[in-house]
Amino acid sequence: MPVSEEACAPAVPATMAQEPRQTDFQLVRVKSTWCRIKKGEAFSNGEDKITLSEAKIGECISECGISWTIEAPIYFCYKVVETYNILDPSNTTLLWGHITDPQQLELAATSKRKPRRFVVIDEVVDKLYGSRVREYFEENNVQHKILALPTTEETKSMDLVLNILQEVQDFSIDRRTEPIIAIGGGVCLDIVGLAASLYRRRTPYIRVPTTLLSYVDASVGAKTGVNFLQCKNKLGGYTPPVASFLDRSFIQSIPRRHISNGLGEILKMALMKHKGLFDLLKTHGKYLLDTKFQSCSGFADHGDAALQTTRIAIETMLEELAPNLWEDDLDRLVDFGHVISPELEMRVLPSLMHGEAVNVDMAFMTYVAHARGLIAAEEREQILQCMRGLELPVWHSGCSWALIKTALRERLKHSGGQPRMPLPTGLGVAEIFNDTSEETLEKAYKLWVRDCRTVLEEEPAAL
Amino acid sequence: MPVSEEACAPAVPATMAQEPRQTDFQLVRVKSTWCRIKKGEAFSNGEDKITLSEAKIGECISECGISWTIEAPIYFCYKVVETYNILDPSNTTLLWGHITDPQQLELAATSKRKPRRFVVIDEVVDKLYGSRVREYFEENNVQHKILALPTTEETKSMDLVLNILQEVQDFSIDRRTEPIIAIGGGVCLDIVGLAASLYRRRTPYIRVPTTLLSYVDASVGAKTGVNFLQCKNKLGGYTPPVASFLDRSFIQSIPRRHISNGLGEILKMALMKHKGLFDLLKTHGKYLLDTKFQSCSGFADHGDAALQTTRIAIETMLEELAPNLWEDDLDRLVDFGHVISPELEMRVLPSLMHGEAVNVDMAFMTYVAHARGLIAAEEREQILQCMRGLELPVWHSGCSWALIKTALRERLKHSGGQPRMPLPTGLGVAEIFNDTSEETLEKAYKLWVRDCRTVLEEEPAAL
Ligand SMILES: NC(=O)c1ccc[n+]([C@@H]2O[C@H](COP(=O)([O-])OP(=O)(O)OC[C@H]3O[C@@H](n4cnc5c(N)ncnc54)[C@H](O)[C@@H]3O)[C@@H](O)[C@H]2O)c1
Ligand SMILES: NC(=O)c1ccc[n+]([C@@H]2O[C@H](COP(=O)([O-])OP(=O)(O)OC[C@H]3O[C@@H](n4cnc5c(N)ncnc54)[C@H](O)[C@@H]3O)[C@@H](O)[C@H]2O)c1
Ligand SMILES: [Zn+2]
Ligand SMILES: [Zn+2]
Repeated sequence: MPVSEEACAPAVPATMAQEPRQTDFQLVRVKSTWCRIKKGEAFSNGEDKITLSEAKIGECISECGISWTIEAPIYFCYKVVETYNILDPSNTTLLWGHITDPQQLELAATSKRKPRRFVVIDEVVDKLYGSRVREYFEENNVQHKILALPTTEETKSMDLVLNILQEVQDFSIDRRTEPIIAIGGGVCLDIVGLAASLYRRRTPYIRVPTTLLSYVDASVGAKTGVNFLQCKNKLGGYTPPVASFLDRSFIQSIPRRHISNGLGEILKMALMKHKGLFDLLKTHGKYLLDTKFQSCSGFADHGDAALQTTRIAIETMLEELAPNLWEDDLDRLVDFGHVISPELEMRVLPSLMHGEAVNVDMAFMTYVAHARGLIAAEEREQILQCMRGLELPVWHSGCSWALIKTALRERLKHSGGQPRMPLPTGLGVAEIFNDTSEETLEKAYKLWVRDCRTVLEEEPAAL
Repeated sequence: MPVSEEACAPAVPATMAQEPRQTDFQLVRVKSTWCRIKKGEAFSNGEDKITLSEAKIGECISECGISWTIEAPIYFCYKVVETYNILDPSNTTLLWGHITDPQQLELAATSKRKPRRFVVIDEVVDKLYGSRVREYFEENNVQHKILALPTTEETKSMDLVLNILQEVQDFSIDRRTEPIIAIGGGVCLDIVGLAASLYRRRTPYIRVPTTLLSYVDASVGAKTGVNFLQCKNKLGGYTPPVASFLDRSFIQSIPRRHISNGLGEILKMALMKHKGLFDLLKTHGKYLLDTKFQSCSGFADHGDAALQTTRIAIETMLEELAPNLWEDDLDRLVDFGHVISPELEMRVLPSLMHGEAVNVDMAFMTYVAHARGLIAAEEREQILQCMRGLELPVWHSGCSWALIKTALRERLKHSGGQPRMPLPTGLGVAEIFNDTSEETLEKAYKLWVRDCRTVLEEEPAAL
């Protein structure tokens, strides 16, 4: 498919008609100026200090003109920080915990200018913790604006993003040194993340998760987003916060079902890559649900199950997210439980929460793994039993064979033509497969229906 | 400012009270799983192929809990491609020019599935070139949707972004292989860039600039944006297109004043880093204005001034942008002409075009450079004369001394407390300065007013 002579030749001077010539350049800075130099060529500029960039420019000269190829890396750096009593005025984490450089910290904390913070907080969280948030900023002498918003799946939209931005503009913050703070569940963190990433092409922001799901998931990665035209997270980006501050004590006020919901995503990490985490969930699942992840030193036989569980969940999540922050690589173990569930969620919302839909997906996939001979029946049973212990659904009547086939077709579209199906190959180990046959899926589906369908429910639509 | 014991101690098991322990991890992938390993530690996994990531995770354990620091690089790669007769149906650039890998190209071009393209085009450009655009896609058997929009500073808003996204959703594209195409001036390219970067957290897009300004500026970098609450480009990002395709022939239909406008940004690059480019503008400026950058082989003594001018402008721009794609480094030579002009533009819009406001700023700064003794009076005159030759304003009545002081104060806010003032230190060389005294600025201002104020105008507001 070469570009025809006719199409590109006319305006090109005759002297240029020749074979394409490729030159690769690096970039060095001398004083204020960046200059390109041929790759591998020595460069000196007398006494001047030279900075070499990681960026590269390739130049290809052909008779059709010049074509430049630019490769430019961007380094994202962010912190995920466990803290206790984050709203205790003497705990400086919320105010300064995002600053790593001691000199910068000194400068910021001793500046004569009053610090300013713009805070967006989920309305429900505001009712429960708002007075302590206000007290925190007042006692620390911070000029602040606290914007309490109903952040729900229904309001998770660009409209709300623009509302926030209007208020940010009115309040006026220094976009380099005064991060926007989001306090709430995943919805609040996602909306504020998107708002901050758009404002002046990127304003630093801080995530303070208040649900278990957002504690182990939304606060660890870079994703931001809002819903658009009935589609979940259709608009968004991958700009990480400067920091996420994790205080488990917020979780004490969320309903039991929301704890299960978060446990769904934790179990995902356990099944994909950590047998120890799986054992923790198996042994302490009920205890974690009962105590809502609050450490109670009274129950010695549970050690600090809540601390360990969340730490391992975060560490394993970070391992998978950090090398693939922008999801350029489509082979992602963290997609486990997210192959069938998007379709299922769309159909049955709001009857299933996200972590619940994920779990239904994982339950089916566990049967697929067994049908493929990747795990033993006994392992499959252990997994299903653990799910039940976490009070997560292992089946949903909306999950017909037709829905599964549609979901897998959709999946192909969004994952570069391959199913890229993460499947457990044991307890806490997994691999990604592209060759699961329709027969295997059907066999797994039948067994799954037989074992997991609740007796009260009707037969699912015929295969 | 240590976090107090009280604030962080309660929930931490006693065994953890110890000095902070820092461990740095790298990430390696074995089969589908990423694992962290201590930095410097050897890692082997028998026969398995191992991939090492550039990402890093630092872990710091202290009595306040764990804190993780994530460093994750993202590699942006994009192409800037000169082409001729881009709308000639036999020129495949617009359709396939963004694909570099020959295998992928083969696959895409021979696929049985009809290719699909969503195109956003400036309304004025559509009137002039729309029928050829339609013909191009029809002849190439491409399923296409062409959305013609009034893309002006007034409509450059999130509203228009959402309109575009609604249409994209209705048309339905494969977000991996079917880039959105933007054809128009800087406004169109900026809006579509933002829309594409938001859609499903990033959809590839292609820029086809049709004005001189966007040819040498917007098409080279990564910036996207829309206006918000009366503020220019207040919302946006830094997601580069997959490719920019440059066809100079579009420029033939833009008004002469718009050519000058683009020449303003070209002159900026000349003054900052390329004496040769400055000489080209000095010698061929009028010719370029007269011929609107169309190569006319008839005028032998001008060689291919248009080709050379645009190439050098782009190359110098790429040198400065590639190492600093997200503008993390605030010391930017390309900010020359953009220190006073934002304030000026805001006050006098629409009487000055962007490149014109930039030029007024550059004219003043040239006087500042001379007042500081960085350039000789003769060099200053050469620069001013070149500006006049390009038919660019070297003065504007809105540019009062008060405005300059306000602009510099605003600048400090957005550039980390330092003025970071790029100034020529000769013809085609420059440096960034933070120590220009108010006296120098005032002296420069007086001389500038004396030399450049047009006689017809009133005195500017008293100093
Ligand atoms: N960015 C990411 O990487 C990422 C990861 C996972 C999920 N998400 C997103 O997160 C959202 C789900 O998050 P979620 O489960 O936290 O939902 P949510 O934010 O809707 O919160 C659930 C409910 O709990 C309430 N709530 C929050 N904190 C509370 C507290 N401490 N006490 C009492 N009530 C409280 C909220 O008001 C809300 O009604 C989804 O929109 C999903 O797309 C994002
Ligand atoms: N992203 C970046 O890096 C970057 C860089 C510079 C400027 N910009 C942005 O670009 C915008 C200015 O760009 P611009 O000067 O191209 O303005 P523009 O897009 O408004 O175009 C100017 C006018 O020319 C018309 N036009 C466009 N192409 C034409 C053609 N071939 N023939 C006849 N008329 C044509 C348009 O309809 C419009 O009326 C600003 O909003 C600025 O913020 C962005
Ligand atoms: Zn999930
Ligand atoms: Zn500019």
